[in-house]
Amino acid sequence: MTEYETARAGKISEALRRVASDEGIDAERLRGLVSEGRVVLTGMARKHSRIIGIGEGLKTKVNANIGTSPDHADPEVELEKMRVAVSAGADAIMDLSTGGDVPAIRKRILDECAVPVGTVPIYEAIVGVTRQGREIADCNVDEFFGAVERQAREGVDFMTIHCGLVKRLADTVAGTRTAGVVSRGGCFLLQWIAKNHRENPYYEYYDRLLDIAHEYDVALSLGDGLRPGAIADSTDGAQIGELMVIGSLVERARRRGVAVFVEGPGHVPINEIPANMLLQKKLCAGAPFYVLGPLVTDVAPGYDHITAAIGGAVAAWHGADFLCYVTPAEHLGLPTVQDVHDGVMGARIAAHAGDIGKGLAGAADWDRKVSAARAGLDWEKALDASIDPPKAKKMFDRSPRGGEELCTMCGEFCAIRGSRRSRE
Amino acid sequence: MTEYETARAGKISEALRRVASDEGIDAERLRGLVSEGRVVLTGMARKHSRIIGIGEGLKTKVNANIGTSPDHADPEVELEKMRVAVSAGADAIMDLSTGGDVPAIRKRILDECAVPVGTVPIYEAIVGVTRQGREIADCNVDEFFGAVERQAREGVDFMTIHCGLVKRLADTVAGTRTAGVVSRGGCFLLQWIAKNHRENPYYEYYDRLLDIAHEYDVALSLGDGLRPGAIADSTDGAQIGELMVIGSLVERARRRGVAVFVEGPGHVPINEIPANMLLQKKLCAGAPFYVLGPLVTDVAPGYDHITAAIGGAVAAWHGADFLCYVTPAEHLGLPTVQDVHDGVMGARIAAHAGDIGKGLAGAADWDRKVSAARAGLDWEKALDASIDPPKAKKMFDRSPRGGEELCTMCGEFCAIRGSRRSRE
Repeated sequence: MTEYETARAGKISEALRRVASDEGIDAERLRGLVSEGRVVLTGMARKHSRIIGIGEGLKTKVNANIGTSPDHADPEVELEKMRVAVSAGADAIMDLSTGGDVPAIRKRILDECAVPVGTVPIYEAIVGVTRQGREIADCNVDEFFGAVERQAREGVDFMTIHCGLVKRLADTVAGTRTAGVVSRGGCFLLQWIAKNHRENPYYEYYDRLLDIAHEYDVALSLGDGLRPGAIADSTDGAQIGELMVIGSLVERARRRGVAVFVEGPGHVPINEIPANMLLQKKLCAGAPFYVLGPLVTDVAPGYDHITAAIGGAVAAWHGADFLCYVTPAEHLGLPTVQDVHDGVMGARIAAHAGDIGKGLAGAADWDRKVSAARAGLDWEKALDASIDPPKAKKMFDRSPRGGEELCTMCGEFCAIRGSRRSRE
Repeated sequence: MTEYETARAGKISEALRRVASDEGIDAERLRGLVSEGRVVLTGMARKHSRIIGIGEGLKTKVNANIGTSPDHADPEVELEKMRVAVSAGADAIMDLSTGGDVPAIRKRILDECAVPVGTVPIYEAIVGVTRQGREIADCNVDEFFGAVERQAREGVDFMTIHCGLVKRLADTVAGTRTAGVVSRGGCFLLQWIAKNHRENPYYEYYDRLLDIAHEYDVALSLGDGLRPGAIADSTDGAQIGELMVIGSLVERARRRGVAVFVEGPGHVPINEIPANMLLQKKLCAGAPFYVLGPLVTDVAPGYDHITAAIGGAVAAWHGADFLCYVTPAEHLGLPTVQDVHDGVMGARIAAHAGDIGKGLAGAADWDRKVSAARAGLDWEKALDASIDPPKAKKMFDRSPRGGEELCTMCGEFCAIRGSRRSRE
């Protein structure tokens, strides 16, 4: 039985109990949410991984993408990114490798990673095909599913599959958009469908996918191959059409006892984010929502950890459950280790701001702790409790101070101190 | 006649015409907004300054705070910050100097700065008093107003005056909050009021303030001395009580022909930002709203340009007109030149995201331009049109690329290219 089926059978598993304890919620309440498909558990595949819950009533989680590209295929660098991301507080890692020895890199990540690991199996399938000098369109159905099964067997915890990008939508999206299709997996399928005049195999043979996911208890992340890649393309017919297909696939996965969550945009103007969250929750029967950003503007390459933090915070406030980080290098190149760190921090800030906004019980306790220490001019306690103590301490200590207890911003005119003195 | 009176008299001044042209809106429409106090013009005091409009129907503006502190009083560094802030796109600069030769630093800023300059005159008054070895409470009424008049005469464009922090509120705020009073000017007044058992002089003699503002056509920025400095203190009785007092002062300023805008928080949970914007606009009869942040969490010192970008974007979307930047050094120390650059970028991203969100005509054209170039794989055009071309280009060029037209993120698997090919 999958964790989802166990919860539906009314049983509280050890995995579920651990997640309930981590989240500080009642195990029976969590079981109910899992059984309704509103929360997905992942991380059970490898003994050394933390198990996390993603969905309604839980803390908003953060994923960090790592992985080689054809131009940058140093596995050591990607492993270092994984370590930095996890130590910066990422709740999950996705390995998106497409360069070098892809299976070997994945094995090292799976062997070491202490948080759930996700993948996009179509990448391995297409990389394999193109390395044989074949076209993307030559990838056959067994190759598409072979990558899924192989990775499931190896212990991947969740997988993005773009099974909602059906032929009808692929045929009409061309020419209707400013930025076309920006999802890598979506674009592979788009080319495959166009050339072969056939239905998306992950959609056509969706039951085969469900069988694999069921056998290995892998959570499926139903990918949005048609996510908007420009503000001008947001919330369009292609995006919402795909979301509706995904909604029907959520129902089928639940009937088969497979846990699913749903991926979302992308580039979305800030004012359209609430409607996007509502639509996903309604059309996908409360499935957890995993968003990439959203990026609230297209104009800021170099700062997309900030545009994504804005969108991610608004999204989490309005119901998103899982934020995929965006690094400052997005749209420009493969991130550095530092970019990965900064991306995780931006996404964690967004997730926490969203948790306060959605009224998650206890979320603001962290803020109260930091602010109470600050109000008491207990710098050490305040900075130790902050999201990135080494960075905060380094900046605090950067410049010589007149008085030991005061920061250099106001020095002797410190309002916190004045306000305290006035109170005393 | 002040610009406000000119607009009320039905006349379109040269300053107003320039602003209308910059904003791409009809001059008569802008005149109407200025005459209703919904837009404030500032920057008329110095010939070499750009004149900007702040308020309804216009692009959201960004202010950068610079200035020495007692521990850091190098005027050259502050002038460099000013230059960097302006070249990064700040629409206004506030000189908050409290260290070194405060009037000399201000003079250099006013002589050079090509955008409107704001100040907080109480700083100069209190610095003067404490340098004479006197207590804050010894500052007399003529000293409070002397600083205002002197700075107005010198050509300061707008001034923050904490005239809404009345004795009744000062007497009750103590002890009710997690972080007390975090406004430096507010805290000076709090101490002055508590020690002297007298009303806030800027409130008691508000007409004297209006006379000065009217004579020099200085815009008043009605400061929120009781702005919340912690998530736990947001939208409390002290904050809203002060906002209501400020609302009454807005009406009095308008009767006197003086242009005013209103300052707002501070630390505010993301879900309380819309109500805060609504309250300000309602209680202050549509006056432009100038917010510091808001910061959506207290836990991220070192990243407060991001927490402020989240809050600023939501605030602008819901009606804020003017964003005061927050740098990564906020709560930790005086910002470096790089921090100032990063702070301006964060605030500009928030302002632009908010402008798209509030439906400002033409706001999303910038995004369309960047995305169309990106979709055409015209990297030079896309990066040149972005918010910080040197930074974006540096990151794009950071690593060797396999194909010249592709970034290293996906390399040969570029979705943008695949999507184009599929279309062709």
